[in-house]
Amino acid sequence: MTGFDPRLSRLRAELDALLRRTNSPVDEAGNGIYERWRHPVVTRDHVPLEWRYDLDPVTNPHLLERIGVNSTFNAGAMAWQGKYLLVLRMEGADRKSYFAIAESDNGVDGFRFRDAPIDMPALDDAETNLYDMRLTAHEDGWIYGLFCAERHDPNHPDDPTAALARCGIARTRDLDTWERLPDLVTRSPQQRNVVLHPEFIDGRYGLYTRPQDGFIEAGGAGGLSWGLAERMDNARVDEETVVDPRAYHTIAEAKNGQGPPPIRTREGWLHLAHGVRGTAAGLRYVLYPFLTELDRPWVIRRKPAGHLLAPRGDERPGDVSNVVFCNGWIRDGNGDDARVLIYYASADTRMHVATSSVDRLVDHCLNAPEDGGSTATSASAIRQLVNANQNRSKV
Amino acid sequence: MTGFDPRLSRLRAELDALLRRTNSPVDEAGNGIYERWRHPVVTRDHVPLEWRYDLDPVTNPHLLERIGVNSTFNAGAMAWQGKYLLVLRMEGADRKSYFAIAESDNGVDGFRFRDAPIDMPALDDAETNLYDMRLTAHEDGWIYGLFCAERHDPNHPDDPTAALARCGIARTRDLDTWERLPDLVTRSPQQRNVVLHPEFIDGRYGLYTRPQDGFIEAGGAGGLSWGLAERMDNARVDEETVVDPRAYHTIAEAKNGQGPPPIRTREGWLHLAHGVRGTAAGLRYVLYPFLTELDRPWVIRRKPAGHLLAPRGDERPGDVSNVVFCNGWIRDGNGDDARVLIYYASADTRMHVATSSVDRLVDHCLNAPEDGGSTATSASAIRQLVNANQNRSKV
Repeated sequence: MTGFDPRLSRLRAELDALLRRTNSPVDEAGNGIYERWRHPVVTRDHVPLEWRYDLDPVTNPHLLERIGVNSTFNAGAMAWQGKYLLVLRMEGADRKSYFAIAESDNGVDGFRFRDAPIDMPALDDAETNLYDMRLTAHEDGWIYGLFCAERHDPNHPDDPTAALARCGIARTRDLDTWERLPDLVTRSPQQRNVVLHPEFIDGRYGLYTRPQDGFIEAGGAGGLSWGLAERMDNARVDEETVVDPRAYHTIAEAKNGQGPPPIRTREGWLHLAHGVRGTAAGLRYVLYPFLTELDRPWVIRRKPAGHLLAPRGDERPGDVSNVVFCNGWIRDGNGDDARVLIYYASADTRMHVATSSVDRLVDHCLNAPEDGGSTATSASAIRQLVNANQNRSKV
Repeated sequence: MTGFDPRLSRLRAELDALLRRTNSPVDEAGNGIYERWRHPVVTRDHVPLEWRYDLDPVTNPHLLERIGVNSTFNAGAMAWQGKYLLVLRMEGADRKSYFAIAESDNGVDGFRFRDAPIDMPALDDAETNLYDMRLTAHEDGWIYGLFCAERHDPNHPDDPTAALARCGIARTRDLDTWERLPDLVTRSPQQRNVVLHPEFIDGRYGLYTRPQDGFIEAGGAGGLSWGLAERMDNARVDEETVVDPRAYHTIAEAKNGQGPPPIRTREGWLHLAHGVRGTAAGLRYVLYPFLTELDRPWVIRRKPAGHLLAPRGDERPGDVSNVVFCNGWIRDGNGDDARVLIYYASADTRMHVATSSVDRLVDHCLNAPEDGGSTATSASAIRQLVNANQNRSKV
């Protein structure tokens, strides 16, 4: 230890270097569908010193960290006033999550936190943990944040591990001041991964839901679902229909859920979702895309087989290993070739970006083979592709 | 994105460099029993472009990957026409596994896939996933492939995670054309890790089995077992006896299973098996050897304590972390000093090789201490070794 001032200088220098570090795509041919970028875009090391340290040498002479940040992940995202904005799930050393905004000029590096975390109103004193916000700029003029609102399950007061998850709802005009609305009401005992569709459906609000029986297990619930609400203040969905079911021996065998709000394209609504399967070492979360009909965003037009993005390399280990999760992406412009910035978290620990474009993601959704359901169909699809390539090379 | 032709050139250059990369033993003294090799021998990056890409610039102008390969692991192995041949478990992005052959001139690098995946006949439409082939060149003249054949458990149609595993059987003369035979029939509700012994036992076929109650849990079943079948077309084992039992506080507490077919040596049949125990982060798979009697390959002659090979370094993280698995090895020549190439997968993700020799593996089986069953016996064994070494150094 070198004393207060030298230590503070070093902390500031380290943070400054991190915030100035430039990012670049990973140097490899890749799959062509998207490019990973080399560095995570937001980590706990990006968090301002003022959030973590008492900077008064009288009360904190050793300059000890007073409030630890454990991880920064599962961010909602949107373009905002010329910047790329993330609403991050911040997890403290105390395991409580809260929301905070970080912004960048180019979307791939230089993400800086605003002055302080979001002041999100609580519904009541029993509400314990808020996380995984989906941001939707709705055509009603509001920006909505839908998130998971969790509390100790009142049906199991003696079990400290029993949690109850609901969909919390807040709205804002400026991303500074948030109005909290009542939680979404559905017929499912628990809800997570609820996402607001950005456009009205015959004057009603469309919601992607994920009903589930327990806190972790989807149970008998069928998968990524859809329902309609008359209003967002006192939102209520009386009927949920399955959009994309769980299915045996797929990447979404155990559960699945909508990622960010879908993107409107000429070919349909472009979705990104997560699929979960069990392994001998716990659950594995991967990301997959699909297209739904423009007029009926709850009807799949085409879904290519399998995952688009799975944990890799340094993304694999973390607080919850073998997880990638995305609840925010940004479409950069209006053309078919518009860039899409996919913000995904790895291992419930850190935020990354991958870049693609509307046309490449749509091309993948329309042209990669669909899931045939078995070893036989998957191997056959490869043999067909090999044959086609061999015949072409003979021409 | 740089256009179709430059991108294709880059993809070809990356694959070519990987296939030309030479391998070498890890530069360390090691345990003397085997040497690990530096690079994985087969990964998803080794897969031909023709299997993954539509190479027509008209139908795939962005040169996007159409069929993703997730992982290459758990390979059967054999010497074949002067080459070292692996039958890999390939897992697609869609989570379906299929079999494909890769061959090398030296067994340690330069593994190249054949033109297309194996065209393995399906038994019926409900068969969903085939994996983990054990190759046995039997003295009846056939080469048999035994593998896990999995389907949705018909007893739990509403649970998309309920799987039923059986032993699938196929045979071939040339490793190109495979004749599928009916699945093995035993009295166990599920079977995995079934391996055909290479020699007749009084005119009958010997099978190492691993009966289990559920898809993951071995349940009440006792461990690595053995049974006899009159024939391999319509193979049936009516009685299974335990060869190597599961045991409390060993590396095979939760389950175990035979790896590749055993190797005949002067001292007995040399086996390699996997043992599994539970941890707070899921199951842990390690490899262990043992010797059985030449005339009674179902009777253990000697089994050294503990694992021979466990996950290490870069082998640890992966799709299913904390797993090494081996279902293929190759004996290189006939002498006691013949090299043995041990092909093992790490984390259900990639294939590695370790090299040893018959005499070293047999020496280990005969001379390393057996499991005494407790802290007291294990610490005592070390004190005896220390004493012996001290007395020797005094001479």
